[in-house]
Amino acid sequence: MSALHVTVWNEYRHEKTHAEVAEIYPDGIHEAIAKHLRAGGIDVRTATLDEPEHGLTGEVLAWTDVLIWWGHMAHREVEDDIVDRVVQRVLDGMGLVVLHSGHGSKVFRKLMGTSCNLKWREIGEKERVWVVEPGHPIAEGLGEYFSIPHAEMYGERFDVPAPDTLVLVSWFQGGEVFRSGCCYQRGQGRIFYFRPGHETYPIFYQPEVLRVVSNAVRWAAPVSGPQVRFGNVPDPMD
Amino acid sequence: MSALHVTVWNEYRHEKTHAEVAEIYPDGIHEAIAKHLRAGGIDVRTATLDEPEHGLTGEVLAWTDVLIWWGHMAHREVEDDIVDRVVQRVLDGMGLVVLHSGHGSKVFRKLMGTSCNLKWREIGEKERVWVVEPGHPIAEGLGEYFSIPHAEMYGERFDVPAPDTLVLVSWFQGGEVFRSGCCYQRGQGRIFYFRPGHETYPIFYQPEVLRVVSNAVRWAAPVSGPQVRFGNVPDPMD
Amino acid sequence: MSALHVTVWNEYRHEKTHAEVAEIYPDGIHEAIAKHLRAGGIDVRTATLDEPEHGLTGEVLAWTDVLIWWGHMAHREVEDDIVDRVVQRVLDGMGLVVLHSGHGSKVFRKLMGTSCNLKWREIGEKERVWVVEPGHPIAEGLGEYFSIPHAEMYGERFDVPAPDTLVLVSWFQGGEVFRSGCCYQRGQGRIFYFRPGHETYPIFYQPEVLRVVSNAVRWAAPVSGPQVRFGNVPDPMD
Amino acid sequence: MSALHVTVWNEYRHEKTHAEVAEIYPDGIHEAIAKHLRAGGIDVRTATLDEPEHGLTGEVLAWTDVLIWWGHMAHREVEDDIVDRVVQRVLDGMGLVVLHSGHGSKVFRKLMGTSCNLKWREIGEKERVWVVEPGHPIAEGLGEYFSIPHAEMYGERFDVPAPDTLVLVSWFQGGEVFRSGCCYQRGQGRIFYFRPGHETYPIFYQPEVLRVVSNAVRWAAPVSGPQVRFGNVPDPMD
Repeated sequence: MSALHVTVWNEYRHEKTHAEVAEIYPDGIHEAIAKHLRAGGIDVRTATLDEPEHGLTGEVLAWTDVLIWWGHMAHREVEDDIVDRVVQRVLDGMGLVVLHSGHGSKVFRKLMGTSCNLKWREIGEKERVWVVEPGHPIAEGLGEYFSIPHAEMYGERFDVPAPDTLVLVSWFQGGEVFRSGCCYQRGQGRIFYFRPGHETYPIFYQPEVLRVVSNAVRWAAPVSGPQVRFGNVPDPMD
Repeated sequence: MSALHVTVWNEYRHEKTHAEVAEIYPDGIHEAIAKHLRAGGIDVRTATLDEPEHGLTGEVLAWTDVLIWWGHMAHREVEDDIVDRVVQRVLDGMGLVVLHSGHGSKVFRKLMGTSCNLKWREIGEKERVWVVEPGHPIAEGLGEYFSIPHAEMYGERFDVPAPDTLVLVSWFQGGEVFRSGCCYQRGQGRIFYFRPGHETYPIFYQPEVLRVVSNAVRWAAPVSGPQVRFGNVPDPMD
Repeated sequence: MSALHVTVWNEYRHEKTHAEVAEIYPDGIHEAIAKHLRAGGIDVRTATLDEPEHGLTGEVLAWTDVLIWWGHMAHREVEDDIVDRVVQRVLDGMGLVVLHSGHGSKVFRKLMGTSCNLKWREIGEKERVWVVEPGHPIAEGLGEYFSIPHAEMYGERFDVPAPDTLVLVSWFQGGEVFRSGCCYQRGQGRIFYFRPGHETYPIFYQPEVLRVVSNAVRWAAPVSGPQVRFGNVPDPMD
Repeated sequence: MSALHVTVWNEYRHEKTHAEVAEIYPDGIHEAIAKHLRAGGIDVRTATLDEPEHGLTGEVLAWTDVLIWWGHMAHREVEDDIVDRVVQRVLDGMGLVVLHSGHGSKVFRKLMGTSCNLKWREIGEKERVWVVEPGHPIAEGLGEYFSIPHAEMYGERFDVPAPDTLVLVSWFQGGEVFRSGCCYQRGQGRIFYFRPGHETYPIFYQPEVLRVVSNAVRWAAPVSGPQVRFGNVPDPMD
């Protein structure tokens, strides 16, 4: 089996404009994630908002088995035709792993069909991420829960369709809960939304978080299923 | 309990341009459905594509508990801002029942996040609609299956998200199957997709079909659930 | 529509042997619940472990639209043939609402097919029950969450099949989360598992808890769906 | 990665008592399946009803990653303590693939919690198995559908819990439909029910059928997820 092809997409703005973010992720969040995946034998590209076509040309997407998406402050700057291209590629079978504030991205909202809104609070409180489906491949290698010492809180109601499979649920010190690991099949593509991760916390260096990301990438890898034909089939079958 | 408020939306073009359709539905498909619902004590309005704002003003939608949608040849003529208004109202709690060729409507596709494509064939073959979830409220009053003597075939792959609940599966004489009764929760609204129904067959006079429609309307009625708040909640809970 | 028929089943041992329980529920937990349901116009019976056939004769079950189940210390004393009778009646369409420690009952475990085990801790900590599916009928009349000042903790992993619909998720002060409101369809019957409720806390007097119980009872009411036939159907259909 | 360990369990009675079955499966259905899996690099054992402990000792089950189950006429002869052992091993993470008439086995019925009843007819009619979830790993390598020239019909209502994922739906010439490929997570184990296969038809030599079986085996392989702890956790987390 040849290596899995993953493109890590990052808005890559915070890192360039906020010193505290640059200190944590000097090469960008995408490189922190890419480095981990490469260490696991995965073939990784990166792409960022300010590249031409946001780095997501038809060629790049055709190469990509699984796309990882991180965005936050500039969701609106992602051009609609690139969004449509990504969405179509997911429906055609590419996997998609959406991280943290990517819940508000055009790509994720379009694929979900809902607002994807949630509650949030940024006081650096403690988070515990509980595995509620321990037999799921995305839980491979995890303990019953893992803790994130300082996290931005995301709280329910998370306005998404009920996930096909709910793998992770977060507890926050301040009193909220959140469906933090959500699996979806859309078209022929598989989507995983993963809550943890913030630009001002070193969450993407935490082994459990990275483990979930690489598990999700493997889970979301495309399947060589049937070539689907739509439209008129004029004759009854024999 | 006051009467349920239902708006039956119909594209209402076939009936005006095709004699064979006009013969079957002289007052439009919407009136055939409306008449049945009124007989069940439901308060019904109708709205059609060629009315101002397609008959779906903010006022009409605010009044509406459940919207029924039938469209076919003119999906593209439905204006995007009206589509957005309908989608938002569903996410806010209004029920939606999408009939037959409404699978291709902008409203349904936007709420599903997928192409909603399928196979089709129009030779007037026999269809059997099987109840696979007999304990579901939408199956109330039905037998194990019902037959439609002459139907347009819709066949899998039906490119929708897996339904939250699959209630009905169709068998077609020509060799295909189809997930014909699909329940979805999106935001605070409930959506039912129901396959049968075509402009050139008297399907919307068939008692079982009408029964499913009225069952679906009752199932999709809004719930007075929590007022959901999104956004920043700066303080931890006490 | 005639009144819904509900039987509230209670083990009814704690109340007779523990003074602190008797003080909170002098007539038994079943009467606290029954009183609330009766006030809502529901026709209610009660039944307890130490009655002949545990109060669950064929006649009682035939009368019952929805059965509420509370048990804790004496799950093993429930006789297997009564368990089979209850399970069969659920598969035939009777609703079932399982409360709190009823997760360990033979009836619930048999219907789920799994151990239904969980973590627990009894230090009277705070619980917050969050509504994650605000458009579901069981959330009718609730706020975004409700708090229980002193609760026995139940924590994940809760070894049940993933619910058809997850309505409620609990947060506990001590650091755990729990899927607290779980909907299942089994056979033609509908089942709701509801976590809150303990014999040494006055939880079954709390309005939000009682509201969930009565919402669940209405949601789980039987549907007059198809009469299902199993076995040999020797001839192809015409 | 070391080879996957699969045990193919077969009742193995028909083959010994019915000449027409022996002719098709001279070494038993289990050997037809085992041969295919071995050719794919899987490490395979077989076990049959008439062996001591039905060939399913604790040692065999501990070795087994995925168990395949075929039974038909002698479900009742499978001893309850062996059934309990198999069920426990599934809940602990072993995969289970249940074939055709295995729907009526004690193991499957216990894990499902329902009757698992269905309609059937044996006139050798045509079956078409449609892929409704083409992006699922169990659909790998298939076309949009495959045909079985002569099959025993199984028809809805199939009294199982709604599958977590529905992958295949069958069409039968005689007029019925059936949910033929159903995925379930139970405890830490994954279960796939697959309809095709009969003792008097050479279905287990058909490439598409064998492909589904080997795909299902790989999909159901155990995950090294969290070690789950149940019971009292006396102290709040820090």
